[in-house]
Amino acid sequence: METMLIYDTTLRDGTQGENISFSADEKLAVARRLDEMGVHYVEGGWPGSNPRDMHFFDLAKRETFENTRLAAFGATRRPGVAVEEDANVRALIASGAPAVAIFGKTWRLHVTQIMKNTQEENLAMIRDTVGYLKSCGREVIYDAEHFFDGFRDDEAYALETLRAAATAGADWIVLCDTNGGSMVYDVEAATARIKTFIDELGLAASPGIGIHTHNDSAMAVANAIVAVQAGARMVHGTINGYGERCGNADLTSLIPILKMKMGFDCITDANLAKLKNLSRFVSETANQVPSSNRPFVGRSAFAHKGGIHVNAIMKNPRAYEHTSPDKVGNRRRVLISDLAGKSNVEYKARELGVALDGNGHDSRAIVDRIKALEEKGYQFDVADGSFKILVEKFTAQFRPLFDLESFRVSIEKNKDQPCTAHATIKIGVGASEEITAAEGQGPVSALDNALRKALGRFFPDLDGMRLVDFKVRVIDGREGTEARVRVLIESRDQDEVWSTIGVSEDIIEASWQALADSFQYKLAKIQKARAAAKQQVATG
Amino acid sequence: METMLIYDTTLRDGTQGENISFSADEKLAVARRLDEMGVHYVEGGWPGSNPRDMHFFDLAKRETFENTRLAAFGATRRPGVAVEEDANVRALIASGAPAVAIFGKTWRLHVTQIMKNTQEENLAMIRDTVGYLKSCGREVIYDAEHFFDGFRDDEAYALETLRAAATAGADWIVLCDTNGGSMVYDVEAATARIKTFIDELGLAASPGIGIHTHNDSAMAVANAIVAVQAGARMVHGTINGYGERCGNADLTSLIPILKMKMGFDCITDANLAKLKNLSRFVSETANQVPSSNRPFVGRSAFAHKGGIHVNAIMKNPRAYEHTSPDKVGNRRRVLISDLAGKSNVEYKARELGVALDGNGHDSRAIVDRIKALEEKGYQFDVADGSFKILVEKFTAQFRPLFDLESFRVSIEKNKDQPCTAHATIKIGVGASEEITAAEGQGPVSALDNALRKALGRFFPDLDGMRLVDFKVRVIDGREGTEARVRVLIESRDQDEVWSTIGVSEDIIEASWQALADSFQYKLAKIQKARAAAKQQVATG
Repeated sequence: METMLIYDTTLRDGTQGENISFSADEKLAVARRLDEMGVHYVEGGWPGSNPRDMHFFDLAKRETFENTRLAAFGATRRPGVAVEEDANVRALIASGAPAVAIFGKTWRLHVTQIMKNTQEENLAMIRDTVGYLKSCGREVIYDAEHFFDGFRDDEAYALETLRAAATAGADWIVLCDTNGGSMVYDVEAATARIKTFIDELGLAASPGIGIHTHNDSAMAVANAIVAVQAGARMVHGTINGYGERCGNADLTSLIPILKMKMGFDCITDANLAKLKNLSRFVSETANQVPSSNRPFVGRSAFAHKGGIHVNAIMKNPRAYEHTSPDKVGNRRRVLISDLAGKSNVEYKARELGVALDGNGHDSRAIVDRIKALEEKGYQFDVADGSFKILVEKFTAQFRPLFDLESFRVSIEKNKDQPCTAHATIKIGVGASEEITAAEGQGPVSALDNALRKALGRFFPDLDGMRLVDFKVRVIDGREGTEARVRVLIESRDQDEVWSTIGVSEDIIEASWQALADSFQYKLAKIQKARAAAKQQVATG
Repeated sequence: METMLIYDTTLRDGTQGENISFSADEKLAVARRLDEMGVHYVEGGWPGSNPRDMHFFDLAKRETFENTRLAAFGATRRPGVAVEEDANVRALIASGAPAVAIFGKTWRLHVTQIMKNTQEENLAMIRDTVGYLKSCGREVIYDAEHFFDGFRDDEAYALETLRAAATAGADWIVLCDTNGGSMVYDVEAATARIKTFIDELGLAASPGIGIHTHNDSAMAVANAIVAVQAGARMVHGTINGYGERCGNADLTSLIPILKMKMGFDCITDANLAKLKNLSRFVSETANQVPSSNRPFVGRSAFAHKGGIHVNAIMKNPRAYEHTSPDKVGNRRRVLISDLAGKSNVEYKARELGVALDGNGHDSRAIVDRIKALEEKGYQFDVADGSFKILVEKFTAQFRPLFDLESFRVSIEKNKDQPCTAHATIKIGVGASEEITAAEGQGPVSALDNALRKALGRFFPDLDGMRLVDFKVRVIDGREGTEARVRVLIESRDQDEVWSTIGVSEDIIEASWQALADSFQYKLAKIQKARAAAKQQVATG
């Protein structure tokens, strides 16, 4: 198996993305995870450009990485400045990183129009900087910025810039699609041309070819892959594809493709199975909502909705899965919706531990009921808890552990003072009744507090339950304040997270439905635990 | 310029995506927008699979589309059933759609293992269904499901299935990468092979080749593009790439690439400039947060953060933009720039007719205030009305046309009865006071009705104002029901639409802020009109 080197630039190019930023400590935490993963290179930042990156490299000096070489990023020396005097180049050396990546200009537009430089001086800058860094004992990765644009514009000059880097001793020549506008066919042809060009230079040690792509044309991953086909052996990208504008090539796609589809030796099977966790870790650290449809690692990447599809994967997952989710640490999910068939409901009911009778009658009826409810705006694929209660109701297995007698919520506002809300609630539990009141920040919070207080007398173990997320969506916003509202509530206890749903034209009614389902779900768990404990006492 | 046909399946394959669903009316609204855009085919749904899609096609019968042909989707007839008797095929005809897309099985795994069918009967199903639909006068689009998997597994059988469809008269043979696992090099080679195969059949009317790709390997767009290079002339995809698992090929990337990068005739320049709006319309309708890094149409697609990049694009945007944002209706953004902030505010204030003094002091203060408010969750780029009031407050130009004394909203629920809500409100208008009450569907509706009733005594012209949209978002959902809520209200009168915003931990407080701003905005308009009328009387 041929080796493919993975070069991660989440900590440098990734932070060019809107809303992406890492502290020096966070960078270190990400670098450690990438090292554990077996990523070959981690580009930690641009030490010459900001104090934070400088600080990161200082911290990193005290670390030992098992698998990863740390790389520092910077530019070729400035025009007319001796390379040893260039502050940016000195910062690269001072960073202590064993590998340095420097970018140089390939495209005449940048050389003459943006930098107001001469073509000759640009070549000298590349030659001098690569040569100097090599003489300092660094591994040198030369990023040919705007390579594909430059190559299209003036092939001869673009080749001269690469010749300058290669003859000065660069270990790697990285072809960059900086603006992300290149098409697969262009990238493939140009990379193949460079492979030949470099071979023909006949150097004692030929540099390897790397590929660095951006997603502005939605083909960053494909562009990297065709470059690999044409001879690239180092692939640049970021975790989750974070990066400027539309982002960089996403390593969470590239790694499994290179390994599983193309058979390269890049990371181990065991590490591949940590890919989803790595993706989550980086999105959490960057404070980004993880994209659910991200290939391989997204929450929806192996989620099946259509009834025919679910039926098929129960016979053979290959029918609608291009690879096995557990290989990348992900899992299969079956969604319940009006597109679902009987198989979805049966699969899901089994997962939730609800018995269905075997003749299929129940699941057919449930599908019809679900379809009718989804027509009204319910969405059970995101509300496991309510789905369980629905299935139990339909199979006469639902035992409500409390009944609502009534509630009243009151909200008051005086002049510029903030609103106040309080709720009164009366419930029945078995033969007992309880009436109580509570305040809250807003009507739903007051209702939640009142219900919790009323139930607390009967179920002290309710303490461990918390609402962790509360989402409101207007389903059809075209009718002013009388539009229908969908409320989703996510709740959690020590060992589980569950979601419940409510839909109504009235936000309080919708919230109540979701809230009541959430408590019923939890109380059923408590009840079950109590019964199990009693059983144990009886038989013990 | 050669023509490339765009086939949109947002309304069918798009709805297989997790959390994506459209009512029949919403489908119609999307279809109309696609028609305006000049998309050639719109696949509206699967009439044989659910009542909603059936309903959509009924509604569509009353519509006239200018540019778009409507397509209905379905399967080949069931095994052992005469095609005229097949309920699913009959539903396709009953839909009235001039084009029908039917999928058939290419991959032996599906034929034998999943369907437990014979290879011969599968061929007969394809032949019969295509032939029958042709005899009914439909344009027939044959979707070769799992084409690339089938072709890899058993090339000869895969070709037989295509031969069956082509010889029975299919107008289009669409090669589907159903599982999304195919690599660009495979798709290119296989498509080229099929092009030759179909040409060699020597049919009187050769079917065209279409391509239908999924994004499970992050290369849906690239796969479509290489298929086009190999001869495909119909491209399937969805707006925003919505679809099962990781989604379908994204038309918001494919359309600009086909047109601008490859020079195909597909939609007009004027329509291309509506692409971003179309993308937004579909994400709003599907109730999805628009993905900011989406190529071409995302909010960050032309956003520049790095100082060097910003400096370069000010000299020449091509330096870091692969295409011009205005061609797709998007715009360039420079991130974290106080200068840009100030000019924005001044530009916007001028647009809203609010005077700022010339020394720039006000706009600097407003920028700081806005930054502080946006930090809390306000978003003024979508709330012109509140922005105007904010600017007026800051420049001491705001004259409130009513003052809130107090309100009280009460919500009651008894057992399974729906909630009832009523509101009491007391306001001051000039020297007068008014107290009144009203009911509503939910607390916000009750409050809206009460405020409207109270103001009606002073401003009978308020009648022309209506709330048209009401959106609720939880900004930070990690604190249970006490998460902060953002309410956006859109209001309209005869000649204008305006938006207002409120943010609070209490949904009623947030709604009140947005509601109050909306009425203040409208009353200021009424006041201005009255003053103008008086002026006219005085001078007349």
